[in-house]
Amino acid sequence: MPELRKDPVTGRWVIIATERRKRPSDFRIDAPVLNGNRFCPFCEGNEQHTPHEVLCYRHSGAPNGPGWDVRVVPNRFPALQVEGALDRQGEGLFDKMSGIGAHEVIIETPDHQASLATLPVASIERVLWAYRERVVDLKQDQRFRYILIFKNHGAAAGASLEHPHSQLIALPIVPLQVREEVDGARQHFAQKERCVYCDVIRQEQDSRTRVISENADFVAVSPYAPRFPFETWVLPRRHHSNFEDAPRHEYESLARMIKEMLQRINRALLAPPFNLVIHSAPFQEGLRDFYHWHVEIMPKLTKVAGFEWGSGFYINPTAPEEAAQVLRDAPI
Amino acid sequence: MPELRKDPVTGRWVIIATERRKRPSDFRIDAPVLNGNRFCPFCEGNEQHTPHEVLCYRHSGAPNGPGWDVRVVPNRFPALQVEGALDRQGEGLFDKMSGIGAHEVIIETPDHQASLATLPVASIERVLWAYRERVVDLKQDQRFRYILIFKNHGAAAGASLEHPHSQLIALPIVPLQVREEVDGARQHFAQKERCVYCDVIRQEQDSRTRVISENADFVAVSPYAPRFPFETWVLPRRHHSNFEDAPRHEYESLARMIKEMLQRINRALLAPPFNLVIHSAPFQEGLRDFYHWHVEIMPKLTKVAGFEWGSGFYINPTAPEEAAQVLRDAPI
Repeated sequence: MPELRKDPVTGRWVIIATERRKRPSDFRIDAPVLNGNRFCPFCEGNEQHTPHEVLCYRHSGAPNGPGWDVRVVPNRFPALQVEGALDRQGEGLFDKMSGIGAHEVIIETPDHQASLATLPVASIERVLWAYRERVVDLKQDQRFRYILIFKNHGAAAGASLEHPHSQLIALPIVPLQVREEVDGARQHFAQKERCVYCDVIRQEQDSRTRVISENADFVAVSPYAPRFPFETWVLPRRHHSNFEDAPRHEYESLARMIKEMLQRINRALLAPPFNLVIHSAPFQEGLRDFYHWHVEIMPKLTKVAGFEWGSGFYINPTAPEEAAQVLRDAPI
Repeated sequence: MPELRKDPVTGRWVIIATERRKRPSDFRIDAPVLNGNRFCPFCEGNEQHTPHEVLCYRHSGAPNGPGWDVRVVPNRFPALQVEGALDRQGEGLFDKMSGIGAHEVIIETPDHQASLATLPVASIERVLWAYRERVVDLKQDQRFRYILIFKNHGAAAGASLEHPHSQLIALPIVPLQVREEVDGARQHFAQKERCVYCDVIRQEQDSRTRVISENADFVAVSPYAPRFPFETWVLPRRHHSNFEDAPRHEYESLARMIKEMLQRINRALLAPPFNLVIHSAPFQEGLRDFYHWHVEIMPKLTKVAGFEWGSGFYINPTAPEEAAQVLRDAPI
């Protein structure tokens, strides 16, 4: 059973997932290798090599067989386990709880060679809709406080399989970094009765130096204080605290904007590895007014080193104004 | 001039260091290459290829020539700039200040092939003493609030030169993660009138399951909630808030313990890349009673991916009890 443990100084929680345990000799992963031409459990026809699907959009065929467009399955090596009670315990100074949660994989397309940058907008929209459906389902489970949806593209960004996929983890606690964002947004609202992200969008639209692109529903910007070169945020114009509560038509707009941003990043930066993360409000906290969901895309271009690990403070060699200019100028 | 910028939501500061700017096409660094057999500016005889030394322990010769054991020089590509006033400005919602700071390189030995695991204890002690001397000097500068000392070993840990070296960055603000540690320690002290790290040391010494090794002055443990597999902390038994205020003899003890830990890590994990960071209290804050300086060593064995970037929440596949056992059993 995985375990959640809390650092007694910072309050940072970690997942100790010994089900994923590796022997010390297995740890040297300097040259991670994606599966390349080898057998892929996410390809059409290989459905029996994944756990049974929990959601599937299919045009033909029976469950857990070919004929699908998007498939969602439990992770075969889950970081958290869905069955069991949320047992909280102290160990002297220390706090832990059982590693209850859900860990699912969203297989974005049957096409092993595709990517979010190349898929048609309608296919990306289906992927986003699958995210939404899974969140709506999982948030009914009262044990969960937060659901993180993320994508690792490329080995350097942490992907272990090449086939286009994203992941979802439902957690029984709110992660520290999410808590910091929420607290920051709460303070801004307390002072000004306005959402800080709405204020940021307005200021960015006025100054325009960091705006990369806009459509009817979304604004893509290089944020003012980015941790990474070419970090890109996609923010909905209309205030909503939660991704899953966006109006139906916004998923199509978001699909279009994500595709455009990934195309620009691919052109400007030679198709780098990247992480994509959906930031959305924790449940059960009534954050509707002051949190503003959005998408963060982080191309993996530099190495994070001791300075960053030791301080949580990032050195970024590219000004966001320059990054925005480069991405605006990239042909799509 | 580099710039410090603050994220308006989380309060996280970043350094925008455009002096280190790279063109978009320079960013693809999937296969970072260390300098190998090529020219090394840190080797003895090549002193003219670094900025002038700010501190040097030498057995012979003139400044900025051969004959040294440890040399400290300004970084040629500094993330922050030492000259100038600390100009603070707002930009609408956003906050920034001029990128004032010091960024120095501690060249640990003239021997290109050595490492902290193989150097004699006396040589490691000299390196630690050089850290201390630089901190004592730099903290007189009233513009600085915090000094981070860290080491990146191996390309995967962010090192760009192979020759054994560490780095020091003096900052005009206290980094968010340091602030979190300090705040956590302050809360514990406020509740219990005791240092949380002293409490942790006592509990670890009682339970022993996470203790790797001890000497007269230091305890090495696998922390209760480690972010990374085989993360190792070296804590001084005696309470001091600041690394630079440790009694003279503790530097020799610390040198011995760091060498032992790196030897154990090298044996158990096949000499992995690692980051080493000294955690010490910010200046000018009167934190003497409740912060407790220590060293954190993080072998670089797994990739940090979207989940961690999105949440600040880490999945660790190795329980610290198991890591401590493996490191205790490693031959040294």
